[in-house]
Amino acid sequence: MQLYHHPFCAHSRLIRLALGEMGIEPELIEEHVWERRAEFLMLDPAGITPVLVENDGFVVPGGDLIAEYLDETRGDHLADRRLLPVDLYARVEVRRLTSWFNHKFFAEVSEPLVREKVYKRRMPREFGGGPPEMSIIRAARANIRYHLQYIGWLLKSRNWLAGERMSYADLAAAAHISVVDYLGDVPWDEDEGAKIWYARIKSRPAFRPLLALTVAGMPPAPCYADLDF
Amino acid sequence: MQLYHHPFCAHSRLIRLALGEMGIEPELIEEHVWERRAEFLMLDPAGITPVLVENDGFVVPGGDLIAEYLDETRGDHLADRRLLPVDLYARVEVRRLTSWFNHKFFAEVSEPLVREKVYKRRMPREFGGGPPEMSIIRAARANIRYHLQYIGWLLKSRNWLAGERMSYADLAAAAHISVVDYLGDVPWDEDEGAKIWYARIKSRPAFRPLLALTVAGMPPAPCYADLDF
Repeated sequence: MQLYHHPFCAHSRLIRLALGEMGIEPELIEEHVWERRAEFLMLDPAGITPVLVENDGFVVPGGDLIAEYLDETRGDHLADRRLLPVDLYARVEVRRLTSWFNHKFFAEVSEPLVREKVYKRRMPREFGGGPPEMSIIRAARANIRYHLQYIGWLLKSRNWLAGERMSYADLAAAAHISVVDYLGDVPWDEDEGAKIWYARIKSRPAFRPLLALTVAGMPPAPCYADLDF
Repeated sequence: MQLYHHPFCAHSRLIRLALGEMGIEPELIEEHVWERRAEFLMLDPAGITPVLVENDGFVVPGGDLIAEYLDETRGDHLADRRLLPVDLYARVEVRRLTSWFNHKFFAEVSEPLVREKVYKRRMPREFGGGPPEMSIIRAARANIRYHLQYIGWLLKSRNWLAGERMSYADLAAAAHISVVDYLGDVPWDEDEGAKIWYARIKSRPAFRPLLALTVAGMPPAPCYADLDF
Protein backbone atom coordinates (compact mmCIF):
# COMPACT_ATOMS: atom_id res chain seq x y z
CA MET A 1 0.00 0.00 0.00
CA GLN A 2 1.28 3.49 -0.82
CA LEU A 3 0.44 6.71 0.98
CA TYR A 4 1.11 10.08 -0.62
CA HIS A 5 1.53 12.43 2.31
CA HIS A 6 3.27 15.48 3.69
CA PRO A 7 4.83 15.60 7.20
CA PHE A 8 2.94 18.82 8.01
CA CYS A 9 -0.38 17.61 6.58
CA ALA A 10 -2.51 16.66 9.59
CA HIS A 11 -4.91 14.68 7.42
CA SER A 12 -1.98 12.53 6.29
CA ARG A 13 -0.95 12.08 9.92
CA LEU A 14 -4.45 10.89 10.84
CA ILE A 15 -4.20 8.15 8.18
CA ARG A 16 -0.68 7.20 9.30
CA LEU A 17 -2.01 6.81 12.86
CA ALA A 18 -4.98 4.75 11.66
CA LEU A 19 -2.74 2.48 9.57
CA GLY A 20 -0.46 2.14 12.60
CA GLU A 21 -3.39 1.04 14.77
CA MET A 22 -4.27 -1.50 12.07
CA GLY A 23 -0.69 -2.81 11.94
CA ILE A 24 -0.20 -1.71 8.33
CA GLU A 25 3.03 -0.07 7.23
CA PRO A 26 2.50 1.76 3.94
CA GLU A 27 5.19 2.91 1.56
CA LEU A 28 5.35 6.66 2.22
CA ILE A 29 5.73 9.09 -0.67
CA GLU A 30 6.20 12.74 0.28
CA GLU A 31 4.15 14.96 -2.01
CA HIS A 32 4.46 18.74 -2.34
CA VAL A 33 0.94 19.51 -3.51
CA TRP A 34 1.75 23.10 -4.44
CA GLU A 35 3.94 21.76 -7.29
CA ARG A 36 0.78 20.25 -8.86
CA ARG A 37 2.68 17.29 -10.33
CA ALA A 38 0.87 15.84 -13.33
CA GLU A 39 1.26 12.23 -12.08
CA PHE A 40 -0.25 13.14 -8.72
CA LEU A 41 -3.17 14.99 -10.30
CA MET A 42 -3.85 11.87 -12.36
CA LEU A 43 -4.30 9.94 -9.09
CA ASP A 44 -6.50 12.64 -7.56
CA PRO A 45 -7.72 15.60 -9.62
CA ALA A 46 -8.39 17.50 -6.36
CA GLY A 47 -4.63 17.41 -5.83
CA ILE A 48 -4.50 17.22 -2.02
CA THR A 49 -2.85 14.85 0.44
CA PRO A 50 -3.30 12.17 1.66
CA VAL A 51 -3.94 9.77 -1.21
CA LEU A 52 -3.90 6.02 -0.61
CA VAL A 53 -3.06 3.57 -3.38
CA GLU A 54 -4.00 -0.03 -2.66
CA ASN A 55 -1.81 -2.97 -3.70
CA ASP A 56 -4.14 -3.58 -6.64
CA GLY A 57 -3.83 0.07 -7.75
CA PHE A 58 -7.21 1.24 -6.43
CA VAL A 59 -6.95 4.92 -5.45
CA VAL A 60 -8.67 6.43 -2.39
CA PRO A 61 -8.18 10.21 -2.16
CA GLY A 62 -8.56 12.44 0.91
CA GLY A 63 -8.39 11.84 4.67
CA ASP A 64 -12.14 11.61 5.29
CA LEU A 65 -12.63 9.06 2.51
CA ILE A 66 -9.58 6.97 3.41
CA ALA A 67 -10.79 6.73 7.02
CA GLU A 68 -14.20 5.43 5.89
CA TYR A 69 -12.57 3.08 3.36
CA LEU A 70 -10.11 1.63 5.89
CA ASP A 71 -12.96 0.99 8.31
CA GLU A 72 -15.00 -0.71 5.59
CA THR A 73 -12.10 -2.91 4.47
CA ARG A 74 -10.15 -3.49 7.73
CA GLY A 75 -12.51 -2.42 10.53
CA ASP A 76 -13.76 -5.95 11.25
CA HIS A 77 -10.26 -7.19 12.11
CA LEU A 78 -9.92 -4.55 14.82
CA ALA A 79 -12.95 -5.92 16.72
CA ASP A 80 -13.41 -3.78 19.85
CA ARG A 81 -10.54 -1.48 18.80
CA ARG A 82 -12.54 -0.47 15.71
CA LEU A 83 -11.99 3.22 14.94
CA LEU A 84 -15.51 3.85 13.59
CA PRO A 85 -18.03 2.09 15.85
CA VAL A 86 -20.81 -0.03 14.38
CA ASP A 87 -23.55 1.50 16.53
CA LEU A 88 -25.58 4.10 14.60
CA TYR A 89 -25.52 6.74 17.34
CA ALA A 90 -21.88 6.24 18.25
CA ARG A 91 -20.94 6.64 14.58
CA VAL A 92 -22.53 10.10 14.48
CA GLU A 93 -20.54 11.24 17.51
CA VAL A 94 -17.25 9.85 16.15
CA ARG A 95 -17.85 11.45 12.74
CA ARG A 96 -18.96 14.74 14.34
CA LEU A 97 -15.73 15.09 16.31
CA THR A 98 -13.52 13.77 13.51
CA SER A 99 -15.06 16.43 11.28
CA TRP A 100 -14.61 19.02 14.07
CA PHE A 101 -10.84 18.51 13.98
CA ASN A 102 -10.45 17.81 10.25
CA HIS A 103 -12.41 20.90 9.27
CA LYS A 104 -12.99 23.35 12.14
CA PHE A 105 -9.69 22.95 14.03
CA PHE A 106 -7.94 22.77 10.64
CA ALA A 107 -9.45 26.07 9.46
CA GLU A 108 -8.99 27.87 12.78
CA VAL A 109 -5.63 26.50 13.97
CA SER A 110 -3.56 23.94 12.07
CA GLU A 111 -4.03 25.16 8.47
CA PRO A 112 -3.15 28.84 9.11
CA LEU A 113 -0.19 27.95 11.37
CA VAL A 114 1.30 25.47 8.89
CA ARG A 115 0.65 27.79 5.95
CA GLU A 116 2.30 30.80 7.58
CA LYS A 117 5.16 29.04 9.39
CA VAL A 118 6.01 26.17 7.02
CA TYR A 119 4.56 26.30 3.52
CA LYS A 120 5.12 30.00 2.87
CA ARG A 121 8.74 29.58 3.93
CA ARG A 122 9.38 26.53 1.75
CA MET A 123 7.35 27.50 -1.29
CA PRO A 124 8.86 29.60 -4.08
CA ARG A 125 7.34 33.07 -4.28
CA GLU A 126 5.50 32.22 -7.53
CA PHE A 127 3.57 29.47 -5.66
CA GLY A 128 2.57 31.85 -2.84
CA GLY A 129 5.72 31.75 -0.70
CA GLY A 130 6.85 34.70 1.41
CA PRO A 131 7.20 35.93 4.99
CA PRO A 132 4.64 34.80 7.60
CA GLU A 133 1.69 37.05 8.53
CA MET A 134 2.04 37.50 12.30
CA SER A 135 -1.60 38.53 12.85
CA ILE A 136 -2.77 35.17 11.41
CA ILE A 137 -0.33 33.27 13.66
CA ARG A 138 -1.56 35.18 16.71
CA ALA A 139 -5.21 34.44 15.87
CA ALA A 140 -4.52 30.71 15.45
CA ARG A 141 -2.59 30.62 18.74
CA ALA A 142 -5.60 32.21 20.48
CA ASN A 143 -8.06 29.83 18.79
CA ILE A 144 -6.31 26.66 19.93
CA ARG A 145 -7.11 27.50 23.55
CA TYR A 146 -10.85 26.93 23.25
CA HIS A 147 -10.27 23.69 21.33
CA LEU A 148 -8.11 22.40 24.20
CA GLN A 149 -10.84 23.45 26.65
CA TYR A 150 -13.40 21.60 24.54
CA ILE A 151 -11.25 18.44 24.61
CA GLY A 152 -10.92 18.77 28.38
CA TRP A 153 -14.67 19.29 28.74
CA LEU A 154 -15.50 16.19 26.68
CA LEU A 155 -13.10 14.09 28.75
CA LYS A 156 -14.82 15.02 32.00
CA SER A 157 -17.56 12.54 31.13
CA ARG A 158 -15.75 10.19 28.75
CA ASN A 159 -12.73 7.98 28.56
CA TRP A 160 -11.90 9.06 24.99
CA LEU A 161 -13.15 12.01 22.92
CA ALA A 162 -16.21 10.34 21.38
CA GLY A 163 -16.99 7.77 24.09
CA GLU A 164 -15.56 4.85 26.01
CA ARG A 165 -13.23 3.68 23.25
CA MET A 166 -10.52 5.32 21.22
CA SER A 167 -11.80 6.25 17.75
CA TYR A 168 -11.05 8.28 14.65
CA ALA A 169 -12.05 11.33 16.70
CA ASP A 170 -9.01 10.89 18.96
CA LEU A 171 -6.68 10.19 16.04
CA ALA A 172 -7.92 13.27 14.15
CA ALA A 173 -7.54 15.53 17.19
CA ALA A 174 -4.08 14.12 17.98
CA ALA A 175 -2.96 14.38 14.34
CA HIS A 176 -3.84 18.07 14.13
CA ILE A 177 -2.47 18.87 17.57
CA SER A 178 0.79 17.01 16.82
CA VAL A 179 1.43 19.25 13.82
CA VAL A 180 0.92 22.35 15.96
CA ASP A 181 3.01 20.81 18.76
CA TYR A 182 5.90 20.28 16.32
CA LEU A 183 5.82 24.05 15.76
CA GLY A 184 5.77 24.65 19.53
CA ASP A 185 2.35 26.35 19.48
CA VAL A 186 0.31 24.18 21.88
CA PRO A 187 -0.19 25.97 25.22
CA TRP A 188 -0.11 22.84 27.40
CA ASP A 189 -0.93 24.85 30.51
CA GLU A 190 -4.41 25.60 29.14
CA ASP A 191 -6.22 22.39 30.12
CA GLU A 192 -4.95 19.56 32.32
CA GLY A 193 -7.47 17.01 30.99
CA ALA A 194 -6.46 17.68 27.40
CA LYS A 195 -2.80 17.29 28.30
CA ILE A 196 -3.35 13.95 30.05
CA TRP A 197 -5.35 12.68 27.07
CA TYR A 198 -2.61 13.73 24.63
CA ALA A 199 0.10 12.06 26.76
CA ARG A 200 -1.97 8.87 26.64
CA ILE A 201 -2.42 8.82 22.87
CA LYS A 202 1.14 10.03 22.26
CA SER A 203 2.53 6.95 24.02
CA ARG A 204 0.78 4.51 21.67
CA PRO A 205 3.11 2.54 19.34
CA ALA A 206 1.26 3.94 16.30
CA PHE A 207 2.45 7.42 17.30
CA ARG A 208 6.19 6.57 17.25
CA PRO A 209 6.87 7.22 13.55
CA LEU A 210 5.32 10.68 13.88
CA LEU A 211 7.42 11.52 16.94
CA ALA A 212 10.59 10.36 15.16
CA LEU A 213 9.91 12.78 12.30
CA THR A 214 12.28 15.70 11.77
CA VAL A 215 12.08 18.09 8.86
CA ALA A 216 15.41 19.41 7.57
CA GLY A 217 16.05 23.01 8.58
CA MET A 218 13.03 22.99 10.85
CA PRO A 219 13.63 20.95 14.02
CA PRO A 220 10.64 20.15 16.26
CA ALA A 221 9.91 22.05 19.47
CA PRO A 222 11.68 20.45 22.50
CA CYS A 223 8.43 19.03 23.97
CA TYR A 224 7.37 17.45 20.65
CA ALA A 225 8.79 13.94 21.03
CA ASP A 226 8.90 14.04 24.85
CA LEU A 227 6.38 11.55 26.31
CA ASP A 228 6.63 13.31 29.64
CA PHE A 229 6.11 16.90 28.39
CA MET B 1 -38.03 15.40 11.62
CA GLN B 2 -36.69 18.94 11.82
CA LEU B 3 -34.05 20.49 9.58
CA TYR B 4 -32.26 23.67 10.60
CA HIS B 5 -31.20 25.20 7.31
CA HIS B 6 -30.59 28.39 5.37
CA PRO B 7 -31.88 28.97 1.82
CA PHE B 8 -28.39 29.99 0.62
CA CYS B 9 -26.60 27.13 2.41
CA ALA B 10 -25.80 24.58 -0.31
CA HIS B 11 -25.15 21.86 2.30
CA SER B 12 -28.72 22.38 3.56
CA ARG B 13 -30.01 22.15 0.00
CA LEU B 14 -28.20 18.84 -0.52
CA ILE B 15 -30.03 17.38 2.50
CA ARG B 16 -33.37 18.82 1.34
CA LEU B 17 -32.83 17.10 -2.03
CA ALA B 18 -31.87 13.82 -0.35
CA LEU B 19 -34.92 13.94 1.94
CA GLY B 20 -37.05 14.72 -1.12
CA GLU B 21 -35.69 11.65 -2.92
CA MET B 22 -36.55 9.63 0.20
CA GLY B 23 -40.08 11.03 0.32
CA ILE B 24 -39.50 12.70 3.68
CA GLU B 25 -40.78 16.21 4.32
CA PRO B 26 -38.98 17.73 7.29
CA GLU B 27 -40.12 20.71 9.31
CA LEU B 28 -37.83 23.48 8.06
CA ILE B 29 -36.37 25.97 10.51
CA GLU B 30 -34.38 28.83 8.99
CA GLU B 31 -31.24 29.49 11.02
CA HIS B 32 -28.98 32.53 10.75
CA VAL B 33 -25.76 30.97 11.98
CA TRP B 34 -23.95 34.31 12.30
CA GLU B 35 -26.30 35.20 15.19
CA ARG B 36 -24.82 32.26 17.15
CA ARG B 37 -28.12 31.52 18.95
CA ALA B 38 -27.53 29.73 22.23
CA GLU B 39 -30.27 27.13 21.55
CA PHE B 40 -28.72 26.30 18.17
CA LEU B 41 -25.22 25.99 19.63
CA MET B 42 -26.67 23.57 22.18
CA LEU B 43 -27.77 21.32 19.29
CA ASP B 44 -24.43 21.64 17.49
CA PRO B 45 -21.43 23.33 19.11
CA ALA B 46 -19.87 23.81 15.64
CA GLY B 47 -22.80 26.12 14.92
CA ILE B 48 -23.25 25.47 11.18
CA THR B 49 -26.20 24.42 9.01
CA PRO B 50 -27.67 21.98 8.26
CA VAL B 51 -28.61 20.22 11.51
CA LEU B 52 -31.12 17.37 11.49
CA VAL B 53 -33.20 16.55 14.56
CA GLU B 54 -34.88 13.16 14.45
CA ASN B 55 -38.41 12.58 15.81
CA ASP B 56 -36.88 11.06 18.94
CA GLY B 57 -34.66 14.13 19.46
CA PHE B 58 -31.43 12.59 18.18
CA VAL B 59 -29.27 15.30 16.63
CA VAL B 60 -27.17 14.83 13.46
CA PRO B 61 -25.08 17.89 12.62
CA GLY B 62 -23.52 18.83 9.28
CA GLY B 63 -24.26 17.93 5.65
CA ASP B 64 -21.63 15.19 5.29
CA LEU B 65 -22.77 13.42 8.47
CA ILE B 66 -26.48 13.73 7.71
CA ALA B 67 -25.92 12.21 4.25
CA GLU B 68 -24.15 9.18 5.76
CA TYR B 69 -26.76 8.90 8.54
CA LEU B 70 -29.72 9.05 6.12
CA ASP B 71 -28.13 6.33 3.99
CA GLU B 72 -27.56 4.17 7.06
CA THR B 73 -31.12 4.60 8.35
CA ARG B 74 -33.16 4.95 5.11
CA GLY B 75 -30.84 3.75 2.32
CA ASP B 76 -32.26 0.22 2.22
CA HIS B 77 -35.74 1.48 1.36
CA LEU B 78 -34.44 3.24 -1.74
CA ALA B 79 -33.17 -0.06 -3.20
CA ASP B 80 -31.62 0.74 -6.60
CA ARG B 81 -32.20 4.48 -6.09
CA ARG B 82 -29.84 4.40 -3.08
CA LEU B 83 -27.79 7.61 -2.93
CA LEU B 84 -24.66 5.95 -1.50
CA PRO B 85 -24.06 2.65 -3.31
CA VAL B 86 -23.27 -0.52 -1.37
CA ASP B 87 -20.32 -1.51 -3.57
CA LEU B 88 -16.98 -0.63 -1.94
CA TYR B 89 -15.44 0.94 -5.05
CA ALA B 90 -18.55 2.82 -6.08
CA ARG B 91 -18.78 4.30 -2.56
CA VAL B 92 -15.32 5.83 -2.93
CA GLU B 93 -16.25 7.51 -6.22
CA VAL B 94 -19.56 8.85 -4.84
CA ARG B 95 -17.85 10.18 -1.70
CA ARG B 96 -14.97 11.63 -3.72
CA LEU B 97 -17.27 13.70 -5.91
CA THR B 98 -19.64 14.61 -3.06
CA SER B 99 -16.62 15.90 -1.19
CA TRP B 100 -15.41 17.68 -4.36
CA PHE B 101 -18.57 19.79 -4.44
CA ASN B 102 -19.11 20.10 -0.68
CA HIS B 103 -15.54 21.24 -0.06
CA LYS B 104 -13.68 22.24 -3.24
CA PHE B 105 -16.52 23.82 -5.22
CA PHE B 106 -17.77 25.36 -1.95
CA ALA B 107 -14.39 26.96 -1.22
CA GLU B 108 -13.75 28.11 -4.79
CA VAL B 109 -17.24 29.12 -5.93
CA SER B 110 -20.38 28.89 -3.79
CA GLU B 111 -19.02 30.04 -0.42
CA PRO B 112 -17.30 33.22 -1.68
CA LEU B 113 -20.24 34.17 -3.94
CA VAL B 114 -22.84 33.69 -1.20
CA ARG B 115 -20.67 35.43 1.39
CA GLU B 116 -20.02 38.47 -0.77
CA LYS B 117 -23.43 38.78 -2.46
CA VAL B 118 -25.83 37.58 0.26
CA TYR B 119 -24.43 37.25 3.78
CA LYS B 120 -22.39 40.46 3.83
CA ARG B 121 -25.47 42.35 2.63
CA ARG B 122 -27.81 40.85 5.23
CA MET B 123 -25.47 40.71 8.21
CA PRO B 124 -25.08 43.69 10.53
CA ARG B 125 -21.65 45.28 10.26
CA GLU B 126 -20.62 43.94 13.69
CA PHE B 127 -21.10 40.36 12.40
CA GLY B 128 -18.93 41.03 9.32
CA GLY B 129 -21.50 42.69 7.03
CA GLY B 130 -20.55 45.30 4.44
CA PRO B 131 -20.21 45.90 0.70
CA PRO B 132 -19.16 42.98 -1.54
CA GLU B 133 -15.54 42.57 -2.65
CA MET B 134 -15.72 42.54 -6.45
CA SER B 135 -12.33 40.84 -6.95
CA ILE B 136 -13.57 37.81 -4.94
CA ILE B 137 -16.78 37.64 -6.99
CA ARG B 138 -14.80 37.78 -10.24
CA ALA B 139 -12.47 34.97 -9.10
CA ALA B 140 -15.42 32.72 -8.14
CA ARG B 141 -17.11 33.42 -11.49
CA ALA B 142 -13.92 32.36 -13.26
CA ASN B 143 -13.52 29.24 -11.08
CA ILE B 144 -17.00 27.87 -11.82
CA ARG B 145 -16.07 27.39 -15.49
CA TYR B 146 -13.61 24.57 -14.88
CA HIS B 147 -16.04 22.85 -12.51
CA LEU B 148 -18.69 22.87 -15.28
CA GLN B 149 -16.09 21.48 -17.70
CA TYR B 150 -15.25 18.74 -15.18
CA ILE B 151 -18.95 17.82 -14.89
CA GLY B 152 -19.21 17.71 -18.67
CA TRP B 153 -16.06 15.58 -18.89
CA LEU B 154 -17.36 13.05 -16.32
CA LEU B 155 -20.66 12.76 -18.17
CA LYS B 156 -18.96 11.82 -21.44
CA SER B 157 -18.44 8.32 -20.04
CA ARG B 158 -21.21 8.11 -17.42
CA ASN B 159 -24.93 8.51 -17.06
CA TRP B 160 -24.63 10.42 -13.76
CA LEU B 161 -21.63 12.08 -12.11
CA ALA B 162 -20.32 9.08 -10.14
CA GLY B 163 -21.59 6.26 -12.35
CA GLU B 164 -24.67 4.73 -13.90
CA ARG B 165 -27.05 5.82 -11.11
CA MET B 166 -27.90 9.14 -9.53
CA SER B 167 -26.12 9.52 -6.19
CA TYR B 168 -25.16 12.00 -3.47
CA ALA B 169 -22.52 13.28 -5.92
CA ASP B 170 -25.24 14.59 -8.26
CA LEU B 171 -27.29 16.05 -5.41
CA ALA B 172 -24.23 17.81 -3.94
CA ALA B 173 -23.21 19.26 -7.32
CA ALA B 174 -26.77 20.36 -8.07
CA ALA B 175 -27.24 21.86 -4.60
CA HIS B 176 -24.13 24.03 -4.90
CA ILE B 177 -24.86 24.99 -8.51
CA SER B 178 -28.48 25.87 -7.66
CA VAL B 179 -27.32 28.42 -5.08
CA VAL B 180 -25.02 30.03 -7.65
CA ASP B 181 -27.77 29.83 -10.30
CA TYR B 182 -30.14 31.72 -7.97
CA LEU B 183 -27.59 34.54 -8.00
CA GLY B 184 -27.38 34.39 -11.81
CA ASP B 185 -23.69 33.39 -11.83
CA VAL B 186 -23.72 30.09 -13.74
CA PRO B 187 -22.37 30.56 -17.30
CA TRP B 188 -24.60 27.95 -18.95
CA ASP B 189 -22.86 28.40 -22.30
CA GLU B 190 -19.67 26.89 -20.84
CA ASP B 191 -20.48 23.18 -21.22
CA GLU B 192 -23.40 21.60 -23.02
CA GLY B 193 -23.11 18.26 -21.15
CA ALA B 194 -23.21 19.98 -17.76
CA LYS B 195 -26.29 21.95 -18.83
CA ILE B 196 -28.16 18.86 -20.01
CA TRP B 197 -27.31 17.04 -16.75
CA TYR B 198 -28.55 20.01 -14.66
CA ALA B 199 -31.79 20.22 -16.67
CA ARG B 200 -32.34 16.52 -15.92
CA ILE B 201 -31.78 16.78 -12.17
CA LYS B 202 -33.64 20.11 -11.97
CA SER B 203 -36.80 18.47 -13.31
CA ARG B 204 -36.96 15.88 -10.51
CA PRO B 205 -39.86 16.31 -8.05
CA ALA B 206 -37.36 16.62 -5.15
CA PHE B 207 -36.06 19.81 -6.74
CA ARG B 208 -39.42 21.63 -6.79
CA PRO B 209 -39.29 23.12 -3.28
CA LEU B 210 -35.86 24.62 -4.05
CA LEU B 211 -37.07 26.14 -7.32
CA ALA B 212 -40.11 27.65 -5.58
CA LEU B 213 -37.86 29.43 -3.10
CA THR B 214 -37.69 33.21 -3.14
CA VAL B 215 -35.81 35.30 -0.63
CA ALA B 216 -37.37 38.67 0.23
CA GLY B 217 -35.53 41.61 -1.34
CA MET B 218 -33.41 39.24 -3.41
CA PRO B 219 -35.40 37.62 -6.25
CA PRO B 220 -33.80 34.73 -8.16
CA ALA B 221 -32.21 35.17 -11.58
CA PRO B 222 -34.77 34.68 -14.42
CA CYS B 223 -33.35 31.28 -15.46
CA TYR B 224 -33.38 29.92 -11.89
CA ALA B 225 -36.78 28.18 -11.81
CA ASP B 226 -37.03 27.74 -15.59
CA LEU B 227 -36.84 24.03 -16.49
CA ASP B 228 -36.07 25.00 -20.08
CA PHE B 229 -33.24 27.46 -19.38
